[in-house]
Amino acid sequence: MRLLTLSLLLRICIAKISLLFTSGGGQLGRMLAYPASLLNIDLVILDPLPNAPAKQLVNPLHSSVNHLDGPFSDSDYVTKLASMADVLTVEIEHINVDALDAAQASSKAIEVHPAPSTLRTIQDKYIQKEWLKARSISIAPFCSVEASEQAVRDAGKSLGYPYMLKSRTLAYDGRGNYVVRSDADAAAALKALGAGPEVDEKSRRKLYAEKWVPFEKEIAVMVVRGKNGEVRSYPVVETIHRDSICHLVYAPLRVRDPKIIAAAKQTAERAIATFEGAGVFGVEMFLLADGAILINEIAPRPHNSGHYTIEACESSQYENHLRAVLGLPLGSTEMKVQSAVMLNFLGPPTSTSLLSRSQPSIDELVKTALNIPGCTVHLYGKAESRPGRKMGHVTIVGASDAEVRTRLRPLLLQLGVDAQQAIDNALAPLPQHRDEHGKLRNGAFNSRNPLVGIIMGSDSDLPVMRDAAKMLDGFEIPYELTIVSAHRTPDRLVEYAKTAVTRGLRVVIAGAGGAAHLPGMVASMTALPVIGVPVKGSTLDGVDSLYSIVQMPRGIPVATVAINNATNAGLLAARIVATSIPSLTAQVETYSARLENEVMGKVDRLEKDGWEDYVVKK
Amino acid sequence: MRLLTLSLLLRICIAKISLLFTSGGGQLGRMLAYPASLLNIDLVILDPLPNAPAKQLVNPLHSSVNHLDGPFSDSDYVTKLASMADVLTVEIEHINVDALDAAQASSKAIEVHPAPSTLRTIQDKYIQKEWLKARSISIAPFCSVEASEQAVRDAGKSLGYPYMLKSRTLAYDGRGNYVVRSDADAAAALKALGAGPEVDEKSRRKLYAEKWVPFEKEIAVMVVRGKNGEVRSYPVVETIHRDSICHLVYAPLRVRDPKIIAAAKQTAERAIATFEGAGVFGVEMFLLADGAILINEIAPRPHNSGHYTIEACESSQYENHLRAVLGLPLGSTEMKVQSAVMLNFLGPPTSTSLLSRSQPSIDELVKTALNIPGCTVHLYGKAESRPGRKMGHVTIVGASDAEVRTRLRPLLLQLGVDAQQAIDNALAPLPQHRDEHGKLRNGAFNSRNPLVGIIMGSDSDLPVMRDAAKMLDGFEIPYELTIVSAHRTPDRLVEYAKTAVTRGLRVVIAGAGGAAHLPGMVASMTALPVIGVPVKGSTLDGVDSLYSIVQMPRGIPVATVAINNATNAGLLAARIVATSIPSLTAQVETYSARLENEVMGKVDRLEKDGWEDYVVKK
Repeated sequence: MRLLTLSLLLRICIAKISLLFTSGGGQLGRMLAYPASLLNIDLVILDPLPNAPAKQLVNPLHSSVNHLDGPFSDSDYVTKLASMADVLTVEIEHINVDALDAAQASSKAIEVHPAPSTLRTIQDKYIQKEWLKARSISIAPFCSVEASEQAVRDAGKSLGYPYMLKSRTLAYDGRGNYVVRSDADAAAALKALGAGPEVDEKSRRKLYAEKWVPFEKEIAVMVVRGKNGEVRSYPVVETIHRDSICHLVYAPLRVRDPKIIAAAKQTAERAIATFEGAGVFGVEMFLLADGAILINEIAPRPHNSGHYTIEACESSQYENHLRAVLGLPLGSTEMKVQSAVMLNFLGPPTSTSLLSRSQPSIDELVKTALNIPGCTVHLYGKAESRPGRKMGHVTIVGASDAEVRTRLRPLLLQLGVDAQQAIDNALAPLPQHRDEHGKLRNGAFNSRNPLVGIIMGSDSDLPVMRDAAKMLDGFEIPYELTIVSAHRTPDRLVEYAKTAVTRGLRVVIAGAGGAAHLPGMVASMTALPVIGVPVKGSTLDGVDSLYSIVQMPRGIPVATVAINNATNAGLLAARIVATSIPSLTAQVETYSARLENEVMGKVDRLEKDGWEDYVVKK
Repeated sequence: MRLLTLSLLLRICIAKISLLFTSGGGQLGRMLAYPASLLNIDLVILDPLPNAPAKQLVNPLHSSVNHLDGPFSDSDYVTKLASMADVLTVEIEHINVDALDAAQASSKAIEVHPAPSTLRTIQDKYIQKEWLKARSISIAPFCSVEASEQAVRDAGKSLGYPYMLKSRTLAYDGRGNYVVRSDADAAAALKALGAGPEVDEKSRRKLYAEKWVPFEKEIAVMVVRGKNGEVRSYPVVETIHRDSICHLVYAPLRVRDPKIIAAAKQTAERAIATFEGAGVFGVEMFLLADGAILINEIAPRPHNSGHYTIEACESSQYENHLRAVLGLPLGSTEMKVQSAVMLNFLGPPTSTSLLSRSQPSIDELVKTALNIPGCTVHLYGKAESRPGRKMGHVTIVGASDAEVRTRLRPLLLQLGVDAQQAIDNALAPLPQHRDEHGKLRNGAFNSRNPLVGIIMGSDSDLPVMRDAAKMLDGFEIPYELTIVSAHRTPDRLVEYAKTAVTRGLRVVIAGAGGAAHLPGMVASMTALPVIGVPVKGSTLDGVDSLYSIVQMPRGIPVATVAINNATNAGLLAARIVATSIPSLTAQVETYSARLENEVMGKVDRLEKDGWEDYVVKK
């Protein structure tokens, strides 16, 4: 019955507000507007700015559903909004929840998602932490802090230095956070956070403190929660911040320990299950070196770390937010591409700030982005650029992590990310090495984001196994090459095999001689296809290796190639990778055609020279 | 410099018109509006309807760029439009080209894309055919036909019966076409096409005739042409019409002969290269049984057969149309998913038409579609449904043809597509067979859209090779199983191997005994990974087969598994398919865990029973 009202009838209000009365937000509502249009859902948007980003995409069909230009804190506007809508939702949590409560009280018909109580809990970060702690969700140690120097120092005593002193409300994009490094920082910290004695007591910011978390990575999961309580999560992603603002989001997360993926999803889903109301939630987490996961903070709305879902997932976070708040079936959260990255476009520093590093303008970045295959530019239609303001983003999709990072590279270079230092750049592959003749050097595709792992039991196998690497270089398929001995480094073997899938490998090539256990043992501990190369030893002509590799028991296959024929192993790996990167298939066909041409050349030479004078080249 | 004006400054007009002065169109402009918003491009839309579909997504920021409500034939409106815009483009070719010429003459600054001359050539189908014929582009024989019964009969004499009598202009979605089956049809044909004596001479439709083309498939290619003449084409797709209206579009096209893909792209690109001006063009073609390709017709705009590009390609046809007409770099036309289908949602017959089959409402279809993973619903915001009117569409993406067709099936069933008869349904896989215990029957995934081909040299290999099929059934991976003998059916071998890639297979499993040439010969004629199963013969214990299969020369790899171990071949195929369908990886891991549990069960039993009483089960 709900669906009958959906077409052209159902209306939903995106309530958007910036308490600073500038248009600090707006892009999230804008990105909600497109999937709303696909379902013929009318949106009415409340925002102080008449030309707010979201309003630009929603042309009211009737004057009765015209957008409202006003602050969300004004109960008149909220009442008017409620009178026009069936469902009310938000794109920012820094809102006047009392006004939402009033809206719900003023009209029995209106639904508010997520629940006002959820927004109230989340918008005060200290209450949010208390809520999560009481429900045994893993978070870093924290404590409340009074607005006094003594209290700031006491927190340092309790949590240790450095620690994070934070404003309980209105903190985002690094604003409202202060790193307290010693007792001496107390006064400066209070002043920076608007909680010092110079601020009158009424407007002084409330604070709390968090223990410093030495995380290895920042990760995030978008979770969608239906009105019936059903919860679905998107893939775990890696988020990279720069100056405390989201800079890059890589999807999916690659990790060594496969348990981390499941644990992160479970942590995020468990946390969201504790809240009331429907909609999409962003869960930002810390991944520690020992694999532990701590929740950093939760956003009760679509989130920057989920922008990538628009181009990379079967249903975007925005579509799923609409589905959730309308009580429609939730959409698939699966990725439809193999790899994606999101890069934020922030307003560059103004020309008057001479000290800041030179930054390209948004237009210059767009110009670069339009030349990148698989790149979708999102500009937010903001009337004015300000330093650090989110003006747009790009999402780049591709068939592999390496492809996505190669595509991203020109933008990172333009942004002046230092090649040696910045963590994000370390994730991008080096430019292809070419020799003085312009030919690719061997090893050019030995990559930090490999699709193929080439391993061998001993360095004595290298003269044979390097042919596999050469073949992959020819196809420009990223690989890694190393030594893993089944018998001499069994722990390394287990680690290598068990991490292969979640590190992003798609094929393993393993070469070994003699008793040749390596390929079979790897195959028994990974779900990837494993190619075995029997390496010829000093006795038995390699038949020992061949039998050891090919005669695997039922349940654990090894794709065995001819003795010493690592060339064919590389080719087989290329054929396998081509099943997930269709453009490679043409390259494999070109290779086969070249083989044919080579033989046809020999046919001609045999004809011309005659068989008596024909010289067989090795 | 162009880019500098792009952000917020550049404005472009989407000129949309239906000569019937109803809102017959509008969805193409609507789908252009979203990518325009992503690049901060202002659109001004001219349409008779104030609430036209495209206008709903573009809320004018300033009154100076307000949409126009009026007919495109009115030169006042066109002049006003030109005064507001930098670039003018169209979403329908049935327009008053004189008005466009006038617009261009009235303002030197305005650009019109595609060129008015191109629109003039294309909108009269007879002139279009003459144009293509003069440039040696393959089309079916045709001739002009006067509006007289004698002329209609003469055309039948010249082209043979049946033939297509067509209106030269304003013919689309089956309107303006008539199948003339014999001399007796002449009067009825003229009447149906509005060219009979009852119509006054001035408004009588001009006609032409086309030879009947006994096509095997209808195919289409979207081509984008930049302002600099650069041409890029999207994948070749299969289009299926129902009552002469586009019903389904499958991307990419699967064919036996790989040359067809290249030939279709080349034909489409060559045809578009003959026209002037920038933008996206839809090229509809006939594929004949002998592989010949004829152009049916060309649309100088985004096209229904390219809707799938929104969700399935790296840049959509709409984004590329904008890039082309603005002189920006063209975007990638590559698919980012492995398979996609588009299904049109047409307005159902009204309840008064009692004779028509019962059809679900759009709302009922949407309800089904929202439950399908990978399905994106597009409703066009049309105020009124009419029978046969395009009200919306869905695009379904997936990791394989079989997955996409399985996802599509509920919608086809709801639309009442007859399971036995309709060609489109024949493309959907059968529902999974289950036995009385609910277990999948062997052969359940023997599919018309296979990912794995299982072949064997002789039926005597079947008792071994069926284990591969059983394994794939367990993973629900679609396959085909047949006999191909290298030595007894060499032509079939060549045909099988050479068509494997373009038919959509991703892996071939080949089993053979003795001299065992099958796997190696298949591998030499396909770019796919080939898995070889050495089948044990009556002598030599299968070592002959093993050596024949594994000891392949450099350049042609075969992934060899243990003698008679087709189980492992099936598993290896599953692992390879999982590299392009990541969700399968978890299933492979579950399988391995089950093997481990089985052995652990035996450990327990050995402990409990004691080794003296332990019974080894076969």
